[in-house]
Order: sequence, then structure tokens, then C-alpha cells
Amino acid sequence: MGARDVRRLAGFYRGLGWDAVVEVDDFVAFGLRGAVLSLFPLDKLAADGNAHAAAPERGMRGFTIAITLETPEAVDETIEAVRRSGGRVTKEPVDTDFGGRSAYFADPEDNYWEVVWVPLDSAMVQAIRRAHGER
Amino acid sequence: MGARDVRRLAGFYRGLGWDAVVEVDDFVAFGLRGAVLSLFPLDKLAADGNAHAAAPERGMRGFTIAITLETPEAVDETIEAVRRSGGRVTKEPVDTDFGGRSAYFADPEDNYWEVVWVPLDSAMVQAIRRAHGER
Repeated sequence: MGARDVRRLAGFYRGLGWDAVVEVDDFVAFGLRGAVLSLFPLDKLAADGNAHAAAPERGMRGFTIAITLETPEAVDETIEAVRRSGGRVTKEPVDTDFGGRSAYFADPEDNYWEVVWVPLDSAMVQAIRRAHGER
Repeated sequence: MGARDVRRLAGFYRGLGWDAVVEVDDFVAFGLRGAVLSLFPLDKLAADGNAHAAAPERGMRGFTIAITLETPEAVDETIEAVRRSGGRVTKEPVDTDFGGRSAYFADPEDNYWEVVWVPLDSAMVQAIRRAHGER
């Protein structure tokens, strides 16, 4: 993820209780469950891909990352932790029409995260389990 | 991932040999190794998060997703598959200063992907393994 201010953004994610597993110069990577969130200056990330940086400062840039939780209560608890860490909750937890519970927050640089619980028998959960090699 | 044209973008990822694990109306999800890539109309995704869509049509929007491969040769093979599927290779595979091999491509809506191999003894690989619960 390209960051305008790696130190500040890393501080926000640390505030959520996430562990930084790599810290080298202006690169910080957090270990998530089965994935790594890496922060690196936006201009350097764009240069690394031979691209020009075209991220607006505010608004959803075309992607969200979903944090999929085990229980509906965990959605509310995570959103409370985000609020305590200074994250901006853009959508309070609500029950969804697919029978789950969903909320959104934006980090200090307006990267959007969905915090979601979906029932175990939903098509999406089954798909995620298959993607993890489970049955 | 917010899409301007879900059908077209899904066709591109299918062309890479990826499996669509969920397809409902204008939502398509692909099972990756340990993750799910979901495509959903950009405006609906933004509305779901109570955000306004602010994705420029071209240029790097502030994030990339890395596909981490087992061998340096797999980087070159993946980039060839991308080229055959009509993806735009923005950075041909090169050996990196951390001893790995890296390339970038953009999908038809300018979502950037890094295709990378990093040596098994690198700090990043160790961090990813720990994030997966391996030692």
C-alpha cells in the first residue's frame, strides 16, 4: 500500500494491535492472518511499477480490503478498537441482506477496510474455505 | 476491488487461469492462494462503505497486490501468461537489489499487480511464513 506518511500510517495500524514483522528504512510490513500488509511511500511504489501515482487524497480509490471475522460481535468490537485508535468509521456495523454483519472504516490516508462477519453456510465463506484448501 | 466493467475485468482474470468461486449478479470472486479477489461495481462498493468513489481511470491508485512465487522462472512465466491474456506489462522481470526477481502488470482497469520471487532466506519471506503460522 502506498503511503504518504509511512510512519504515521504504521502508527495507526500498530494502534490496532497489529504486529510489524518487517521494518527497513521507509518500509513497514504487518503480518495479518495469511497475508502481509506492506506500507511503502506512494511515489516509490509507483516508480517501482513504472507507473505514475494517481491516488486522490480522499475518497475510495477503487478497492477495499475485507477483514473477515468469526462472529458478529467481533465486528462491533473491531470497530470500537478502530475508533479508539483514531480511525474514521464510515459505516457503523449493520446487519446485511446476506445475513451477515458489516462495517467500514478509513485509515488516516483514506484507505478503506470492510470489517465483516458472514454466516458459515454462505457461498462466500465456502469459497474462502476452498481457496484456503479446506473443505 | 471496484470495477468499472465487472464482466470485462472478470474475463481478464479468467484468462489468467484463475477460478471464479462465486458469481452472483454483478459480483465475481476469484479464489487465490489464501485469499479471495472480489470484483464489484466501483460505485456500489463506494456506496457500501458510505464513501464517494475517487478512483482515477489511469495511474497507480495507491496500492498494488503482490503475487509471491516459488521460483524466479515463475515470475517470467506469469508475465508471459499476462501478456497472452492482454494484460499490460509495465515492468519486465528484473533481478532486484534484495536478491529476488520482480515485475509488474496492470489489468484492463489499471489495477497494478507485482509478480515477485524473493529468496527463501529473506526477511520478507520469513515474515510471510510467520504470518501463515509456519516457522
